[in-house]
Amino acid sequence: MSSQGRPRRADAERNRERVLASAEIVLARDGLPVSMRAVAAHAGVGLGTIYRNFPTQEALYQSIIVQRTQALIAEAAELSTAPEPGRAFLAYFTRIVAHATRTKAMADLLARAGIDPKSGLADVGQADVGQDMRQAVQGLLTRAQHAGAIRADLQMPELMALLTATCLAAEASQWDAGLRTRTLAIVFDGMRAQPPAR
Amino acid sequence: MSSQGRPRRADAERNRERVLASAEIVLARDGLPVSMRAVAAHAGVGLGTIYRNFPTQEALYQSIIVQRTQALIAEAAELSTAPEPGRAFLAYFTRIVAHATRTKAMADLLARAGIDPKSGLADVGQADVGQDMRQAVQGLLTRAQHAGAIRADLQMPELMALLTATCLAAEASQWDAGLRTRTLAIVFDGMRAQPPAR
Repeated sequence: MSSQGRPRRADAERNRERVLASAEIVLARDGLPVSMRAVAAHAGVGLGTIYRNFPTQEALYQSIIVQRTQALIAEAAELSTAPEPGRAFLAYFTRIVAHATRTKAMADLLARAGIDPKSGLADVGQADVGQDMRQAVQGLLTRAQHAGAIRADLQMPELMALLTATCLAAEASQWDAGLRTRTLAIVFDGMRAQPPAR
Repeated sequence: MSSQGRPRRADAERNRERVLASAEIVLARDGLPVSMRAVAAHAGVGLGTIYRNFPTQEALYQSIIVQRTQALIAEAAELSTAPEPGRAFLAYFTRIVAHATRTKAMADLLARAGIDPKSGLADVGQADVGQDMRQAVQGLLTRAQHAGAIRADLQMPELMALLTATCLAAEASQWDAGLRTRTLAIVFDGMRAQPPAR
Protein backbone atom coordinates (compact mmCIF):
# COMPACT_ATOMS: atom_id res chain seq x y z
CA MET A 1 0.00 0.00 0.00
CA SER A 2 2.88 2.36 0.74
CA SER A 3 4.64 1.89 -2.59
CA GLN A 4 3.16 3.17 -5.83
CA GLY A 5 3.56 -0.24 -7.48
CA ARG A 6 1.32 -2.30 -5.21
CA PRO A 7 -2.11 -0.79 -5.89
CA ARG A 8 -1.34 -0.68 -9.59
CA ARG A 9 -0.47 -4.35 -9.63
CA ALA A 10 -3.63 -5.11 -7.67
CA ASP A 11 -5.62 -3.05 -10.17
CA ALA A 12 -4.06 -4.93 -13.06
CA GLU A 13 -4.92 -8.24 -11.40
CA ARG A 14 -8.49 -7.10 -10.79
CA ASN A 15 -8.79 -6.01 -14.42
CA ARG A 16 -7.50 -9.37 -15.60
CA GLU A 17 -9.99 -11.22 -13.43
CA ARG A 18 -12.82 -9.02 -14.59
CA VAL A 19 -11.93 -9.59 -18.26
CA LEU A 20 -11.70 -13.34 -17.68
CA ALA A 21 -15.08 -13.45 -15.94
CA SER A 22 -16.64 -11.46 -18.79
CA ALA A 23 -15.01 -13.74 -21.36
CA GLU A 24 -16.63 -16.75 -19.63
CA ILE A 25 -20.05 -15.09 -19.83
CA VAL A 26 -19.63 -14.02 -23.47
CA LEU A 27 -18.41 -17.53 -24.37
CA ALA A 28 -21.38 -19.21 -22.69
CA ARG A 29 -23.76 -16.75 -24.35
CA ASP A 30 -22.36 -16.56 -27.91
CA GLY A 31 -20.11 -19.61 -28.33
CA LEU A 32 -16.87 -19.55 -30.27
CA PRO A 33 -15.09 -17.52 -31.48
CA VAL A 34 -15.18 -15.11 -28.55
CA SER A 35 -15.39 -11.49 -29.75
CA MET A 36 -12.77 -9.37 -27.98
CA ARG A 37 -15.03 -6.35 -28.51
CA ALA A 38 -17.94 -8.10 -26.80
CA VAL A 39 -15.68 -9.01 -23.86
CA ALA A 40 -14.46 -5.42 -23.56
CA ALA A 41 -18.05 -4.12 -23.66
CA HIS A 42 -19.18 -6.61 -21.02
CA ALA A 43 -16.23 -5.92 -18.72
CA GLY A 44 -16.54 -2.16 -19.19
CA VAL A 45 -12.88 -1.76 -20.18
CA GLY A 46 -11.15 -0.67 -23.35
CA LEU A 47 -9.91 -3.03 -26.04
CA GLY A 48 -6.37 -2.11 -25.03
CA THR A 49 -6.90 -3.67 -21.60
CA ILE A 50 -8.15 -6.87 -23.23
CA TYR A 51 -5.17 -7.20 -25.56
CA ARG A 52 -2.67 -6.27 -22.84
CA ASN A 53 -3.89 -9.25 -20.80
CA PHE A 54 -4.71 -11.60 -23.68
CA PRO A 55 -2.74 -10.77 -26.84
CA THR A 56 -4.48 -13.52 -28.84
CA GLN A 57 -7.75 -15.44 -28.70
CA GLU A 58 -5.72 -18.56 -27.99
CA ALA A 59 -4.21 -16.90 -24.92
CA LEU A 60 -7.72 -16.02 -23.72
CA TYR A 61 -9.00 -19.58 -24.30
CA GLN A 62 -6.05 -21.04 -22.48
CA SER A 63 -6.66 -18.74 -19.51
CA ILE A 64 -10.34 -19.72 -19.40
CA ILE A 65 -9.40 -23.40 -19.42
CA VAL A 66 -6.72 -22.88 -16.77
CA GLN A 67 -9.25 -21.08 -14.54
CA ARG A 68 -11.92 -23.76 -15.01
CA THR A 69 -9.51 -26.58 -14.52
CA GLN A 70 -8.15 -25.02 -11.33
CA ALA A 71 -11.72 -24.80 -10.00
CA LEU A 72 -12.26 -28.49 -10.83
CA ILE A 73 -8.95 -29.43 -9.21
CA ALA A 74 -10.01 -27.61 -6.05
CA GLU A 75 -13.20 -29.70 -6.03
CA ALA A 76 -11.14 -32.88 -6.40
CA ALA A 77 -9.07 -31.88 -3.39
CA GLU A 78 -12.28 -31.50 -1.36
CA LEU A 79 -13.47 -34.96 -2.47
CA SER A 80 -10.14 -36.63 -1.74
CA THR A 81 -11.05 -37.20 1.90
CA ALA A 82 -14.73 -38.05 1.38
CA PRO A 83 -15.92 -41.01 3.49
CA GLU A 84 -17.07 -43.07 0.45
CA PRO A 85 -14.26 -43.08 -2.14
CA GLY A 86 -16.35 -44.85 -4.82
CA ARG A 87 -19.16 -42.31 -4.62
CA ALA A 88 -16.64 -39.47 -4.54
CA PHE A 89 -14.94 -40.72 -7.71
CA LEU A 90 -18.22 -41.15 -9.61
CA ALA A 91 -19.53 -37.81 -8.35
CA TYR A 92 -16.42 -36.13 -9.68
CA PHE A 93 -16.78 -37.81 -13.08
CA THR A 94 -20.41 -36.60 -13.18
CA ARG A 95 -19.32 -33.11 -12.15
CA ILE A 96 -16.88 -32.82 -15.05
CA VAL A 97 -19.46 -34.02 -17.59
CA ALA A 98 -22.11 -31.65 -16.21
CA HIS A 99 -19.54 -28.88 -16.49
CA ALA A 100 -18.95 -29.74 -20.16
CA THR A 101 -22.70 -29.64 -20.85
CA ARG A 102 -23.12 -26.22 -19.29
CA THR A 103 -20.99 -24.32 -21.75
CA LYS A 104 -21.72 -24.10 -25.43
CA ALA A 105 -18.30 -24.84 -26.75
CA MET A 106 -15.93 -26.59 -24.32
CA ALA A 107 -14.80 -29.18 -26.85
CA ASP A 108 -14.06 -26.59 -29.51
CA LEU A 109 -12.33 -24.53 -26.85
CA LEU A 110 -10.01 -27.40 -26.00
CA ALA A 111 -9.23 -27.92 -29.66
CA ARG A 112 -8.68 -24.22 -30.39
CA ALA A 113 -6.42 -23.76 -27.40
CA GLY A 114 -4.12 -26.23 -29.13
CA ILE A 115 -4.64 -29.01 -26.61
CA ASP A 116 -3.59 -32.49 -27.63
CA PRO A 117 -6.88 -34.39 -27.87
CA LYS A 118 -5.10 -37.68 -27.04
CA SER A 119 -4.60 -36.43 -23.51
CA GLY A 120 -8.20 -35.28 -23.07
CA LEU A 121 -8.21 -32.49 -20.53
CA ALA A 122 -4.43 -32.41 -20.09
CA ASP A 123 -1.70 -30.16 -21.44
CA VAL A 124 -2.95 -26.62 -21.14
CA GLY A 125 -0.26 -24.31 -22.46
CA GLN A 126 2.66 -23.63 -20.16
CA ALA A 127 0.52 -24.08 -17.08
CA ASP A 128 0.71 -27.42 -15.33
CA VAL A 129 -3.03 -27.56 -14.64
CA GLY A 130 -3.51 -30.33 -17.21
CA GLN A 131 -1.07 -32.51 -15.32
CA ASP A 132 -2.65 -31.44 -12.01
CA MET A 133 -6.08 -32.38 -13.37
CA ARG A 134 -4.90 -35.84 -14.39
CA GLN A 135 -3.34 -36.30 -10.97
CA ALA A 136 -6.59 -35.23 -9.29
CA VAL A 137 -8.57 -37.79 -11.30
CA GLN A 138 -5.88 -40.42 -10.74
CA GLY A 139 -5.95 -39.76 -6.99
CA LEU A 140 -9.72 -40.22 -6.73
CA LEU A 141 -9.54 -43.33 -8.94
CA THR A 142 -6.80 -44.98 -6.91
CA ARG A 143 -8.65 -44.31 -3.66
CA ALA A 144 -11.88 -45.74 -5.11
CA GLN A 145 -10.02 -48.81 -6.37
CA HIS A 146 -8.37 -49.38 -2.97
CA ALA A 147 -11.81 -49.16 -1.39
CA GLY A 148 -12.95 -51.94 -3.75
CA ALA A 149 -15.60 -49.76 -5.38
CA ILE A 150 -14.01 -49.44 -8.84
CA ARG A 151 -12.53 -52.34 -10.82
CA ALA A 152 -8.81 -52.69 -10.23
CA ASP A 153 -8.02 -53.11 -13.94
CA LEU A 154 -9.38 -49.70 -14.94
CA GLN A 155 -6.40 -47.72 -16.25
CA MET A 156 -6.01 -43.98 -16.81
CA PRO A 157 -6.01 -44.02 -20.66
CA GLU A 158 -9.42 -45.74 -20.79
CA LEU A 159 -10.76 -43.57 -17.97
CA MET A 160 -9.66 -40.38 -19.73
CA ALA A 161 -11.10 -41.74 -23.02
CA LEU A 162 -14.48 -42.30 -21.34
CA LEU A 163 -14.34 -38.88 -19.70
CA THR A 164 -13.47 -37.21 -23.00
CA ALA A 165 -16.18 -39.19 -24.83
CA THR A 166 -18.98 -38.31 -22.43
CA CYS A 167 -17.85 -34.66 -22.20
CA LEU A 168 -17.78 -34.31 -25.99
CA ALA A 169 -21.23 -35.88 -26.45
CA ALA A 170 -22.75 -34.02 -23.51
CA GLU A 171 -21.52 -30.78 -25.00
CA ALA A 172 -22.37 -31.56 -28.64
CA SER A 173 -25.83 -32.95 -27.92
CA GLN A 174 -26.58 -30.75 -24.89
CA TRP A 175 -27.58 -33.71 -22.72
CA ASP A 176 -30.23 -32.83 -20.19
CA ALA A 177 -29.77 -33.98 -16.59
CA GLY A 178 -31.92 -37.09 -17.13
CA LEU A 179 -30.04 -38.36 -20.17
CA ARG A 180 -26.74 -37.59 -18.46
CA THR A 181 -27.70 -39.59 -15.38
CA ARG A 182 -28.97 -42.60 -17.36
CA THR A 183 -26.03 -42.64 -19.76
CA LEU A 184 -23.39 -42.28 -17.04
CA ALA A 185 -25.16 -45.00 -15.01
CA ILE A 186 -24.24 -47.50 -17.75
CA VAL A 187 -20.63 -46.32 -17.93
CA PHE A 188 -20.37 -46.41 -14.13
CA ASP A 189 -21.73 -49.95 -13.98
CA GLY A 190 -18.95 -50.88 -16.40
CA MET A 191 -16.37 -49.27 -14.10
CA ARG A 192 -17.66 -50.75 -10.83
CA ALA A 193 -15.89 -53.67 -9.21
CA GLN A 194 -19.26 -55.15 -8.24
CA PRO A 195 -22.03 -54.03 -10.56
CA PRO A 196 -25.23 -53.53 -8.60
CA ALA A 197 -27.94 -56.20 -8.93
CA ARG A 198 -30.45 -55.45 -11.67
CA MET B 1 -29.80 -49.23 -74.86
CA SER B 2 -32.05 -48.55 -77.84
CA SER B 3 -33.16 -45.12 -76.65
CA GLN B 4 -30.75 -42.20 -76.47
CA GLY B 5 -31.72 -41.48 -72.84
CA ARG B 6 -30.66 -44.73 -71.19
CA PRO B 7 -26.89 -44.68 -71.67
CA ARG B 8 -26.81 -41.02 -70.73
CA ARG B 9 -28.63 -41.69 -67.49
CA ALA B 10 -26.25 -44.58 -66.80
CA ASP B 11 -23.29 -42.30 -67.55
CA ALA B 12 -24.69 -39.67 -65.20
CA GLU B 13 -25.10 -42.26 -62.45
CA ARG B 14 -21.55 -43.53 -63.01
CA ASN B 15 -20.24 -39.96 -62.86
CA ARG B 16 -22.10 -39.34 -59.62
CA GLU B 17 -20.67 -42.48 -58.07
CA ARG B 18 -17.18 -41.62 -59.23
CA VAL B 19 -17.45 -38.12 -57.75
CA LEU B 20 -18.75 -39.51 -54.46
CA ALA B 21 -15.94 -42.07 -54.25
CA SER B 22 -13.37 -39.33 -54.93
CA ALA B 23 -14.98 -37.06 -52.34
CA GLU B 24 -14.59 -39.85 -49.74
CA ILE B 25 -10.89 -40.18 -50.57
CA VAL B 26 -10.27 -36.41 -50.56
CA LEU B 27 -12.15 -36.10 -47.25
CA ALA B 28 -10.12 -38.88 -45.61
CA ARG B 29 -6.90 -37.35 -46.95
CA ASP B 30 -7.46 -33.62 -46.33
CA GLY B 31 -10.29 -33.39 -43.79
CA LEU B 32 -12.94 -30.68 -43.90
CA PRO B 33 -13.86 -28.57 -45.77
CA VAL B 34 -13.73 -30.73 -48.90
CA SER B 35 -12.34 -28.78 -51.87
CA MET B 36 -14.64 -29.22 -54.87
CA ARG B 37 -11.61 -28.60 -57.10
CA ALA B 38 -9.65 -31.41 -55.42
CA VAL B 39 -12.61 -33.77 -55.88
CA ALA B 40 -12.92 -32.83 -59.56
CA ALA B 41 -9.17 -33.37 -60.07
CA HIS B 42 -9.28 -36.74 -58.32
CA ALA B 43 -12.35 -37.93 -60.22
CA GLY B 44 -10.99 -36.65 -63.54
CA VAL B 45 -14.13 -34.65 -64.30
CA GLY B 46 -14.85 -30.96 -64.71
CA LEU B 47 -16.06 -28.69 -61.92
CA GLY B 48 -19.39 -28.46 -63.77
CA THR B 49 -20.00 -32.19 -63.26
CA ILE B 50 -19.31 -31.79 -59.54
CA TYR B 51 -21.73 -28.91 -59.08
CA ARG B 52 -24.41 -30.54 -61.28
CA ASN B 53 -24.46 -33.49 -58.86
CA PHE B 54 -23.69 -31.62 -55.65
CA PRO B 55 -24.70 -27.95 -55.84
CA THR B 56 -23.37 -27.22 -52.35
CA GLN B 57 -20.81 -28.69 -49.95
CA GLU B 58 -23.68 -29.59 -47.64
CA ALA B 59 -25.30 -31.64 -50.42
CA LEU B 60 -22.00 -33.47 -50.92
CA TYR B 61 -21.59 -34.15 -47.18
CA GLN B 62 -25.13 -35.44 -46.92
CA SER B 63 -24.54 -37.80 -49.84
CA ILE B 64 -21.35 -39.12 -48.25
CA ILE B 65 -23.20 -39.75 -44.99
CA VAL B 66 -26.11 -41.40 -46.79
CA GLN B 67 -23.70 -43.70 -48.63
CA ARG B 68 -21.78 -44.61 -45.48
CA THR B 69 -24.91 -45.11 -43.46
CA GLN B 70 -26.41 -47.37 -46.14
CA ALA B 71 -23.26 -49.49 -46.03
CA LEU B 72 -23.54 -49.74 -42.23
CA ILE B 73 -27.24 -50.61 -42.49
CA ALA B 74 -26.39 -53.42 -44.91
CA GLU B 75 -23.93 -54.76 -42.32
CA ALA B 76 -26.65 -54.64 -39.65
CA ALA B 77 -28.94 -56.68 -41.88
CA GLU B 78 -26.23 -59.32 -42.20
CA LEU B 79 -25.80 -59.42 -38.41
CA SER B 80 -29.55 -59.62 -37.72
CA THR B 81 -29.55 -63.41 -38.07
CA ALA B 82 -26.21 -64.09 -36.39
CA PRO B 83 -26.30 -67.07 -34.01
CA GLU B 84 -25.14 -65.05 -30.97
CA PRO B 85 -27.30 -61.87 -30.75
CA GLY B 86 -25.26 -60.36 -27.90
CA ARG B 87 -21.98 -60.69 -29.76
CA ALA B 88 -23.61 -59.41 -32.95
CA PHE B 89 -24.90 -56.29 -31.18
CA LEU B 90 -21.55 -55.50 -29.56
CA ALA B 91 -19.68 -56.23 -32.78
CA TYR B 92 -21.90 -53.75 -34.57
CA PHE B 93 -21.31 -51.07 -31.94
CA THR B 94 -17.56 -51.64 -32.31
CA ARG B 95 -17.86 -51.50 -36.10
CA ILE B 96 -19.50 -48.07 -36.00
CA VAL B 97 -16.88 -46.67 -33.61
CA ALA B 98 -14.05 -48.11 -35.71
CA HIS B 99 -15.66 -46.48 -38.73
CA ALA B 100 -15.71 -43.11 -36.95
CA THR B 101 -12.02 -43.46 -36.08
CA ARG B 102 -11.00 -44.25 -39.65
CA THR B 103 -12.03 -40.95 -41.14
CA LYS B 104 -10.53 -37.64 -40.15
CA ALA B 105 -13.70 -35.68 -39.76
CA MET B 106 -16.87 -37.73 -39.30
CA ALA B 107 -18.09 -35.72 -36.34
CA ASP B 108 -17.59 -32.39 -38.11
CA LEU B 109 -19.24 -33.89 -41.17
CA LEU B 110 -22.35 -34.78 -39.17
CA ALA B 111 -22.48 -31.28 -37.72
CA ARG B 112 -21.90 -29.54 -41.06
CA ALA B 113 -24.53 -31.63 -42.82
CA GLY B 114 -26.99 -30.00 -40.44
CA ILE B 115 -27.73 -33.16 -38.50
CA ASP B 116 -29.43 -32.78 -35.14
CA PRO B 117 -26.79 -33.93 -32.67
CA LYS B 118 -29.50 -35.03 -30.22
CA SER B 119 -30.37 -37.86 -32.56
CA GLY B 120 -26.76 -38.94 -33.02
CA LEU B 121 -26.50 -40.60 -36.41
CA ALA B 122 -30.12 -39.97 -37.37
CA ASP B 123 -31.85 -37.43 -39.58
CA VAL B 124 -29.77 -37.17 -42.73
CA GLY B 125 -31.46 -34.66 -45.02
CA GLN B 126 -34.48 -35.86 -46.91
CA ALA B 127 -33.19 -39.42 -47.02
CA ASP B 128 -34.61 -41.82 -44.48
CA VAL B 129 -31.28 -43.50 -43.81
CA GLY B 130 -31.05 -41.89 -40.36
CA GLN B 131 -34.28 -43.55 -39.37
CA ASP B 132 -33.17 -46.81 -41.04
CA MET B 133 -29.92 -46.66 -39.08
CA ARG B 134 -31.74 -46.23 -35.78
CA GLN B 135 -34.02 -49.12 -36.66
CA ALA B 136 -31.02 -51.29 -37.52
CA VAL B 137 -29.42 -50.54 -34.14
CA GLN B 138 -32.76 -50.98 -32.38
CA GLY B 139 -33.28 -54.37 -34.09
CA LEU B 140 -29.89 -55.70 -32.99
CA LEU B 141 -30.44 -54.32 -29.47
CA THR B 142 -33.87 -55.90 -29.06
CA ARG B 143 -32.61 -59.26 -30.28
CA ALA B 144 -29.64 -59.11 -27.88
CA GLN B 145 -31.96 -58.16 -25.01
CA HIS B 146 -34.35 -61.05 -25.79
CA ALA B 147 -31.38 -63.39 -25.79
CA GLY B 148 -30.56 -62.15 -22.26
CA ALA B 149 -27.15 -60.82 -23.31
CA ILE B 150 -27.86 -57.09 -22.91
CA ARG B 151 -29.62 -55.53 -19.91
CA ALA B 152 -33.35 -55.17 -20.50
CA ASP B 153 -33.46 -51.60 -19.16
CA LEU B 154 -31.07 -50.20 -21.77
CA GLN B 155 -33.10 -47.72 -23.84
CA MET B 156 -32.36 -46.21 -27.24
CA PRO B 157 -31.61 -42.61 -26.06
CA GLU B 158 -28.82 -43.80 -23.74
CA LEU B 159 -27.55 -46.27 -26.33
CA MET B 160 -27.39 -43.58 -29.01
CA ALA B 161 -25.75 -41.22 -26.49
CA LEU B 162 -23.04 -43.82 -25.78
CA LEU B 163 -22.58 -44.50 -29.48
CA THR B 164 -22.29 -40.78 -30.23
CA ALA B 165 -19.90 -40.26 -27.30
CA THR B 166 -17.50 -43.04 -28.27
CA CYS B 167 -17.64 -42.08 -31.97
CA LEU B 168 -16.86 -38.43 -31.20
CA ALA B 169 -13.93 -39.30 -28.91
CA ALA B 170 -12.60 -42.01 -31.21
CA GLU B 171 -12.60 -39.52 -34.04
CA ALA B 172 -11.29 -36.53 -32.06
CA SER B 173 -8.53 -38.44 -30.28
CA GLN B 174 -7.85 -40.95 -33.08
CA TRP B 175 -8.11 -43.95 -30.76
CA ASP B 176 -5.88 -46.81 -31.79
CA ALA B 177 -7.35 -50.32 -31.88
CA GLY B 178 -6.04 -51.14 -28.40
CA LEU B 179 -7.52 -48.10 -26.68
CA ARG B 180 -10.80 -48.64 -28.57
CA THR B 181 -11.02 -52.26 -27.41
CA ARG B 182 -10.22 -51.45 -23.77
CA THR B 183 -12.54 -48.43 -23.60
CA LEU B 184 -15.48 -50.19 -25.27
CA ALA B 185 -14.94 -53.21 -22.98
CA ILE B 186 -15.92 -51.00 -20.02
CA VAL B 187 -18.98 -49.58 -21.79
CA PHE B 188 -20.00 -53.09 -22.89
CA ASP B 189 -19.69 -54.44 -19.33
CA GLY B 190 -22.08 -51.67 -18.32
CA MET B 191 -24.53 -52.74 -21.03
CA ARG B 192 -24.37 -56.49 -20.35
CA ALA B 193 -27.14 -58.25 -18.45
CA GLN B 194 -24.55 -60.35 -16.66
CA PRO B 195 -21.17 -58.66 -16.46
CA PRO B 196 -18.40 -61.21 -16.88
CA ALA B 197 -16.48 -62.27 -13.78
CA ARG B 198 -13.35 -60.21 -13.16
